[in-house]
Amino acid sequence: MFFNIFSLKNLLVLSLALNASLILRVLYEKDSEIINGLSVEKQEDALMTAASVLSEARATQRARPSMHSSSSTVDSDVRDTIINLDHGDPTMYERFWQQAGDKSTIVIPGWQSMSYFSDAGSLCWFLEPEFAKEIIRLHKIVGNAVTKDRYIVVGTGSTQLYQAVLYALSPQDAVEPVSVVSAAPYYSSYPLITDCLKSGLYKWAGDARSFSKEGPFIELVTSPNNPDGDVRQSVVNKSGGILVHDLAYYWPQYTPIVSAADHDIMLFTVSKSTGHAGMRIGWALVKDEEVAKKMVKFVELNTIGVSKDSQLRAAKVLQAVINSCQYPTSLGSLFDFSAHLMEERWRLLRAAVRQSGLFSLPEFSPGSCSFLNRSFATQPAFAWLKCLELMKDCEGFLRSNNILTRSGKHFGVSPQYVRISMLDRDENFHIFVERLSTIHLRHSIQVDETGE
Amino acid sequence: MFFNIFSLKNLLVLSLALNASLILRVLYEKDSEIINGLSVEKQEDALMTAASVLSEARATQRARPSMHSSSSTVDSDVRDTIINLDHGDPTMYERFWQQAGDKSTIVIPGWQSMSYFSDAGSLCWFLEPEFAKEIIRLHKIVGNAVTKDRYIVVGTGSTQLYQAVLYALSPQDAVEPVSVVSAAPYYSSYPLITDCLKSGLYKWAGDARSFSKEGPFIELVTSPNNPDGDVRQSVVNKSGGILVHDLAYYWPQYTPIVSAADHDIMLFTVSKSTGHAGMRIGWALVKDEEVAKKMVKFVELNTIGVSKDSQLRAAKVLQAVINSCQYPTSLGSLFDFSAHLMEERWRLLRAAVRQSGLFSLPEFSPGSCSFLNRSFATQPAFAWLKCLELMKDCEGFLRSNNILTRSGKHFGVSPQYVRISMLDRDENFHIFVERLSTIHLRHSIQVDETGE
Repeated sequence: MFFNIFSLKNLLVLSLALNASLILRVLYEKDSEIINGLSVEKQEDALMTAASVLSEARATQRARPSMHSSSSTVDSDVRDTIINLDHGDPTMYERFWQQAGDKSTIVIPGWQSMSYFSDAGSLCWFLEPEFAKEIIRLHKIVGNAVTKDRYIVVGTGSTQLYQAVLYALSPQDAVEPVSVVSAAPYYSSYPLITDCLKSGLYKWAGDARSFSKEGPFIELVTSPNNPDGDVRQSVVNKSGGILVHDLAYYWPQYTPIVSAADHDIMLFTVSKSTGHAGMRIGWALVKDEEVAKKMVKFVELNTIGVSKDSQLRAAKVLQAVINSCQYPTSLGSLFDFSAHLMEERWRLLRAAVRQSGLFSLPEFSPGSCSFLNRSFATQPAFAWLKCLELMKDCEGFLRSNNILTRSGKHFGVSPQYVRISMLDRDENFHIFVERLSTIHLRHSIQVDETGE
Repeated sequence: MFFNIFSLKNLLVLSLALNASLILRVLYEKDSEIINGLSVEKQEDALMTAASVLSEARATQRARPSMHSSSSTVDSDVRDTIINLDHGDPTMYERFWQQAGDKSTIVIPGWQSMSYFSDAGSLCWFLEPEFAKEIIRLHKIVGNAVTKDRYIVVGTGSTQLYQAVLYALSPQDAVEPVSVVSAAPYYSSYPLITDCLKSGLYKWAGDARSFSKEGPFIELVTSPNNPDGDVRQSVVNKSGGILVHDLAYYWPQYTPIVSAADHDIMLFTVSKSTGHAGMRIGWALVKDEEVAKKMVKFVELNTIGVSKDSQLRAAKVLQAVINSCQYPTSLGSLFDFSAHLMEERWRLLRAAVRQSGLFSLPEFSPGSCSFLNRSFATQPAFAWLKCLELMKDCEGFLRSNNILTRSGKHFGVSPQYVRISMLDRDENFHIFVERLSTIHLRHSIQVDETGE
């Protein structure tokens, strides 16, 4: 009878109106005891729960069409789809966050976070204390880095922190720029970023293995390495060097966590740990106070701090990651989800490479992971693919098959190699491995024709 | 009777539970037609309205204590409070956004904006299309800049865009760095940012008025000027120069909008237009495609794009500003609110300066503002205060009175000047003018003692 008169829609509006008026009465008329912080927060939580149901529904609606938008153009024939695996865009993680629901949803009212300052009195005055707290908690639970007696410096991605480190480690009054080196194959952006402004403070000096110049130098140690997944240590065997550890990929979905990294300068990023590349948030763990201060100075000069909105969102996301580890649901933790996915993808890729017969991949030995409590081999965020001798330009060859990758020449080695992102959305990844496995058959004529 | 059995609190929880269960039924049980996008959005809007009541209540609770936290330390005696007006922290705007309610509140679910890309096919691939749309709408309604046939480049604040411009305008193969100049007093950060990495591409060359070097140069024209509020045009009278217009303060709360600025490169920022400094969002309007492309390249190398969270929030905030202009409430538009506040503050400051007798301020002639439809004189975001001849270190003198300002020496002129932020919270501003007006009486002895 009741439901005959009112539709569900009517009731919803009615109930909300009731809420709003009740809240107004509660807040403004009397009963002042109810306005204490906790009570208001509890009410907001309840509203958030309801809001999340809607937000999740919208997520499901929107996620499907967007799958094609950024990295592929779908044609009538799936074989013509351009698969862009040049960048390490971590869209693979979207599925986890869609399924995880509202725990990482953030609400920011217009009046919040307006000031330049997050914590005016602290060394890193633009670091949101809430985000700093979650960074420490996450490293503690994963066990991948020591945070004790370290300063945290937040950056607009670890890319900005890389430049902050170079600025901090280069003497302002040196006669010539400090040499910056890394063992090849090295991250393709290192030389570009280092030399883009022709700085008098620092200068890219190439492969760390062949570095022999006298004087101070900075060695970048990326472990696991981008592009080849190698677990690395310093290679320059002489004094006067300062080490910078880029640990963007030292997370259990990519490699076994064998011990807590304990270096002087360590760089991390949400892009590759939680998949939130669009946030542009990274952090550095820094032992020396003076180095940390100079890094802060650089970020101040470069961008007057780091987006507060993204820091607050990152705090919420890290909190959700920690919760997913402490109280895993049927979905598992973020690391269970992504480690499983990486394992599956590497299995499919290796099978495709075997079937094609035109390529090879690096092999990794298993290690024992203290976080996942099992032994497995590194399953990197990038595949470092080597073409057979007869194809000298692996990137060009794959491009002719509508697969966009990054040539080895950008990483300081031969164009016989390419770097391929393993972090794209499921659909694109599956088209990619399917196509790779059949290239041999479809393109054998083309390979012969090039005469190589 | 009803209210005797159930408390308001009970009813609230009951109503919320009813909502949640209704929404669940609506979404998941049947009636699938109701799940279409529009309907879900409408329901979310309704929830947001209820949520906003709570969020506003929290804002009011939190704003009071936080007033002291970032820029002042309150002692038992208000006269001992340190008033920090060194930075241009625009916390004055918090009050507008608190009163404006939920229209600018943003909700970002965990799965959203994960990719590096915002619009992969466009020139500025990391620019959120929604934000670009609102920028164009805002300039159109305010009438302060031409957007037609311009490229929009987003930056991590206009600070990053300033560097992007230098990178874009400097030839990569030049024998010596391009000179960068600006008429003194110039923004104190220009020389620091320009020279911090000892770039071989560009070099700070000081006051534009005394610049006479041969060869190409870049002239920065900040109008209204930071620090002195002067409405400016280029001053270098020779060819070979490229102009960059920093229009951070060309908004109707600071100066009459006399015409739409129509320059080749124009920089803007939300920090000084809406007061959201913590977002770190700026934008450039650029005529030349190649310049825009190189600016995009710089932001790509420097930070791999710009926080999507902040761009989405900025879009929402600009939308709220536009709405406040089109459909003004009793609060007025953002520009009504802030223009009124600036007028009032300048009136109070000038009265305090007169009463003290120790200082002087620049005078501005009135101009007709096409946006506010009235005539008024520039009322800048900074006061450019000059101490009497007998006090050579104005910054030091004010510091001894617990007022922190920035010395003229950082702006390329005499330390007899200081720059003072006019954008702090009401409470701090009022303590400041009160103290300034009485300095003469309280500190005449101290001034005599220094013998100056």
